[in-house]
Amino acid sequence: MRIRDYGIVIGEMPTGRLNKISDVPGVTVGHSTIAAGKHNTGVTVIMTSDKNPFHHKLPAASVVLNGFGKSQGLVQVDELGQLESPIALTNTLNVGLVWDAMVEYVLQRCTMDGLFAPASINPVVCECNDGRLSDIRHRAVGQKEVFDAIAAATTDFEEGAVGAGRGTVCHGLKGGIGTASRTMEYDGKTYTLGVLVQSNYGRLSDLRIDGRPVGKEIASGALEEDKGSIIVVMGTDLPLSDRQIKRVLRRAGVGLARVGSFTGHGSGEVFVGFSTANAMEGDDKAIRVTESFREDLMNDPFRAMAEATEEAVLNSMSCSVAVGDVKSLADYLPKLCK
Amino acid sequence: MRIRDYGIVIGEMPTGRLNKISDVPGVTVGHSTIAAGKHNTGVTVIMTSDKNPFHHKLPAASVVLNGFGKSQGLVQVDELGQLESPIALTNTLNVGLVWDAMVEYVLQRCTMDGLFAPASINPVVCECNDGRLSDIRHRAVGQKEVFDAIAAATTDFEEGAVGAGRGTVCHGLKGGIGTASRTMEYDGKTYTLGVLVQSNYGRLSDLRIDGRPVGKEIASGALEEDKGSIIVVMGTDLPLSDRQIKRVLRRAGVGLARVGSFTGHGSGEVFVGFSTANAMEGDDKAIRVTESFREDLMNDPFRAMAEATEEAVLNSMSCSVAVGDVKSLADYLPKLCK
Amino acid sequence: MRIRDYGIVIGEMPTGRLNKISDVPGVTVGHSTIAAGKHNTGVTVIMTSDKNPFHHKLPAASVVLNGFGKSQGLVQVDELGQLESPIALTNTLNVGLVWDAMVEYVLQRCTMDGLFAPASINPVVCECNDGRLSDIRHRAVGQKEVFDAIAAATTDFEEGAVGAGRGTVCHGLKGGIGTASRTMEYDGKTYTLGVLVQSNYGRLSDLRIDGRPVGKEIASGALEEDKGSIIVVMGTDLPLSDRQIKRVLRRAGVGLARVGSFTGHGSGEVFVGFSTANAMEGDDKAIRVTESFREDLMNDPFRAMAEATEEAVLNSMSCSVAVGDVKSLADYLPKLCK
Amino acid sequence: MRIRDYGIVIGEMPTGRLNKISDVPGVTVGHSTIAAGKHNTGVTVIMTSDKNPFHHKLPAASVVLNGFGKSQGLVQVDELGQLESPIALTNTLNVGLVWDAMVEYVLQRCTMDGLFAPASINPVVCECNDGRLSDIRHRAVGQKEVFDAIAAATTDFEEGAVGAGRGTVCHGLKGGIGTASRTMEYDGKTYTLGVLVQSNYGRLSDLRIDGRPVGKEIASGALEEDKGSIIVVMGTDLPLSDRQIKRVLRRAGVGLARVGSFTGHGSGEVFVGFSTANAMEGDDKAIRVTESFREDLMNDPFRAMAEATEEAVLNSMSCSVAVGDVKSLADYLPKLCK
Repeated sequence: MRIRDYGIVIGEMPTGRLNKISDVPGVTVGHSTIAAGKHNTGVTVIMTSDKNPFHHKLPAASVVLNGFGKSQGLVQVDELGQLESPIALTNTLNVGLVWDAMVEYVLQRCTMDGLFAPASINPVVCECNDGRLSDIRHRAVGQKEVFDAIAAATTDFEEGAVGAGRGTVCHGLKGGIGTASRTMEYDGKTYTLGVLVQSNYGRLSDLRIDGRPVGKEIASGALEEDKGSIIVVMGTDLPLSDRQIKRVLRRAGVGLARVGSFTGHGSGEVFVGFSTANAMEGDDKAIRVTESFREDLMNDPFRAMAEATEEAVLNSMSCSVAVGDVKSLADYLPKLCK
Repeated sequence: MRIRDYGIVIGEMPTGRLNKISDVPGVTVGHSTIAAGKHNTGVTVIMTSDKNPFHHKLPAASVVLNGFGKSQGLVQVDELGQLESPIALTNTLNVGLVWDAMVEYVLQRCTMDGLFAPASINPVVCECNDGRLSDIRHRAVGQKEVFDAIAAATTDFEEGAVGAGRGTVCHGLKGGIGTASRTMEYDGKTYTLGVLVQSNYGRLSDLRIDGRPVGKEIASGALEEDKGSIIVVMGTDLPLSDRQIKRVLRRAGVGLARVGSFTGHGSGEVFVGFSTANAMEGDDKAIRVTESFREDLMNDPFRAMAEATEEAVLNSMSCSVAVGDVKSLADYLPKLCK
Repeated sequence: MRIRDYGIVIGEMPTGRLNKISDVPGVTVGHSTIAAGKHNTGVTVIMTSDKNPFHHKLPAASVVLNGFGKSQGLVQVDELGQLESPIALTNTLNVGLVWDAMVEYVLQRCTMDGLFAPASINPVVCECNDGRLSDIRHRAVGQKEVFDAIAAATTDFEEGAVGAGRGTVCHGLKGGIGTASRTMEYDGKTYTLGVLVQSNYGRLSDLRIDGRPVGKEIASGALEEDKGSIIVVMGTDLPLSDRQIKRVLRRAGVGLARVGSFTGHGSGEVFVGFSTANAMEGDDKAIRVTESFREDLMNDPFRAMAEATEEAVLNSMSCSVAVGDVKSLADYLPKLCK
Repeated sequence: MRIRDYGIVIGEMPTGRLNKISDVPGVTVGHSTIAAGKHNTGVTVIMTSDKNPFHHKLPAASVVLNGFGKSQGLVQVDELGQLESPIALTNTLNVGLVWDAMVEYVLQRCTMDGLFAPASINPVVCECNDGRLSDIRHRAVGQKEVFDAIAAATTDFEEGAVGAGRGTVCHGLKGGIGTASRTMEYDGKTYTLGVLVQSNYGRLSDLRIDGRPVGKEIASGALEEDKGSIIVVMGTDLPLSDRQIKRVLRRAGVGLARVGSFTGHGSGEVFVGFSTANAMEGDDKAIRVTESFREDLMNDPFRAMAEATEEAVLNSMSCSVAVGDVKSLADYLPKLCK
């Protein structure tokens, strides 16, 4: 059950149809989950479009709120303001192998599509540390899992303890993958902004649901330390420039703070975003016609980002089952919502 | 009355003696207020030390969460990681004249102290736009007001609608100057982290007090726009490096988000911080001995920053009187706290 | 005489008609010079357009190569990616008064143009320290000089020891204002990139002209220290985004290194750039049509930037007369070019 | 033969004993070269110390001059200001596998040293694209090559077409690995700053040796495009803070510009630096005693960085043999130096 199913509504803006990042046309998400023996880990891939990602580059940007993390690919995304691969999420020490698998995917995809297979590819791979619930030093996620996740990508994907969220812990309870979306109307057209998180941060006693300090109500005993990370991915069909995407991403921090994050020292709080508008496709003209969004209307996507991030984190927790000795928020929500 | 006087306690860490930025040894604050005719404005100066600021430079850094603002001096602070002047706050269009007055102050102070009067000085001046309550285009704050504020600097300074906070508006109610502090113990010694804000942002309907959506309870009618700015100044006697100060400053955003900020498009959300440890004083050796704070203990100053920022904003509102047609939170607090 | 008049050609790209920043359509430059008694200083204003700068905002960005400087206005330029004022250059301690005068100019200009006079204005003011040749502590540049410089703005403006370049020193010789431009062809149309510098950095022994170590040939005696600053302003009619402008600006460092800069510790090396395309003019639609320049063609504006910066610095020196005890490069060039 | 062997002396500062990055005490470098069939590639590892890199963390920073590159690990280096692994260089598409091998190395090394094997490791891996001379899509560098390079690490390592420099091309001639160093005296002690480059950028016609346009003398025919990348690694035993390291790294651009770089669009120009002083070793005190270098003396390490980078690039070329159809600068130097 998602957080809205408990009657908890975050913010004031309307959601998209599924209330998922896949409400943005063209975006799908796939998981591959490893839950066997000492492993609780996996990979989640956000497919930003149904077109070839290398030959249909999207405006993109990243923001690092706290950089105790191993995310890869951000340097080039920020220099060129564009994304040329799907976005993969996995566990901390698996970043190298997943990056290599993403290179292989782009090469094979280009061959399959009859397009030039590049000698330079910039996959974006982000991570959280699931070492509490999984044997992270063994780097269990390989090329097979990455390809499986891509093959499984769909609009109505699962949330919770799946894919890269299988082994994560959030506010002392089971975290995982969560998502939410918001819509806006401009010039008679509806636009969507969607968020997906991999949640793995925080102290139980700091947890708040729509302002209410439920963590303190649940917690007992000594204060644990705030550690772990969170990855936030944002997609939108609004024609935002890379600079505007960066501005929007910074508002992920608003949503996180409201759930109870202090942006801990050991946290990799990394936000990556893209727009599906104004794709670059190997134009033959030096100067092409594009669309630009009015800067003074940015408050709408800012609020959408903050709301969707807050809700996505709560969904990542309410949709997760208990794993190992880590309990699920779902066990407490019925009582809390009485 | 401050927010704690209403029984509202933000966070879990202990406060300093005054619960003000001036709990950091050596730090004082002075105001000069203009409240006459069409003017509701002024200047607030944070004196970072009782020593000559140019010849006793402090480790410092800044963070711009949203840069729709005119703050001056940040470029050099971030390059050199040091502060060589007091920090002045004023209204948006007065930044030039206040900067010039600060140059004059440093020159006169050096002459008075019998020290070299430099040909290069980097005053830090930050601002909020008080144009709703004051005739901002006339730039009423001059050298006299700056020197008056410096002369008035004290540890037990006033909060609310004073100095640079005279004309500001926060969450649709009267904002102003607010402050708070937190203490930490290391190696048997107590350290303090203090915050001072000039609050001028936000929608009434977004206002929350310790999570409770009081803004929605107070607000009536149409949703107003989130505009305006907030300046956050942090001081500490912990021996933080400039990079560590920058990390701490980023947690100001946590406190702001909890009071209800969405970091609006039109907001200058600028954070400046300094440490009173490891001052640079024209050493004659190339390599000097300094103190460094362990990186893995940063969660404490992070939490202190988030808590003190949240409380300082609430103090800026609860201590403010109504000005013009802008009401005070103090009018609502007794009823809200019943 | 400009450096080309000595037969020295920097780079391989064609120049604009005047080989000045004013080759960019709409751009003009004006000086006001103070050369009396103990003062050798002034102000130079780059008018980015003949339209009202606040109501015709231009895409813009800044890069700080070394931030020992007091430039003002960069925070907002980088957040919004736009410029809403002319760009003023002056001496270090005069930045406050010139900033205030620019606020006054925009207010008066809006009134004159029958447009809304804003309560928030972000002038960009950059500076070099001319304290070796001028009594900088007295801040001689006031509103009159700023308004005079604006009134004097023209396409065929003077270079050398004028305006903000009156008192600057570059590579131990007289520096000042210099400019150059380059042109490029795309889709059958000619575009221009122009540069203007205020040069005030460097050691004589490091000076190179087109690679030749002329500084070592001229210098005699002990090595002086590299101090001072340089401001580089770039304008273009290419439809570059703010991110692309930032990329172009970074190549100013290439030109500076070739003349002999080591980007000294005490240098404010600040670069500001704008495009005259895609101006923002208070559109009523949320999404407007704009032009975008292909990223993979950026090598042309990069090379143009490096070449024009190198040539502009040399022009700032070759066009300067000797002032006080600081000699002019022009005194050496005939012999060097024999 | 190195560039000095041709009588060409870059700059004015003294070199270290070997004129290599390994003049910095504790620093060694190892290569593993693949030169067989369609492969001309490899890996080069800079060992920053003979101590366990994870348990003896060094102050560090990075600068991205142009981010068209896939370097990994910079996010955490810049957040924490520290390095916890050796630095590996390889080809563009091999970054994932080399990163994974570096994780394995740190895990095995910790076990071998009887120290805690971490669940979170941040290897730094940088790259250039050697696709012109090697079959880059096959990612030939694996764990064996990485471990071989580490095992081979020595102070008197080879330069030129070896390790990660085997397949790179610089200014149209054979590039590769090059190194140089400079020394400084403070308080009666000698300090060293060393640089190592992997050179793979530039147009032949832009090549300059100590200012002389030798590229134009060698080149014939049409202008080629400036593409490719350059990685610059800096090490020093000066007690520089992470911010100071960042300032030093920015001067790598000065050296590159002098050899003829325009910092092309397609270039990954990534600089990583570390200090061997003030290592963090799991102290039990919250506040430890460290050394700090006076900010106003930074011109020395700045000049050292610029000089050593320029010389290291020239060494990377003069020491390289021809590979495939790419000629060596060594073939031209005797004639050029006549």
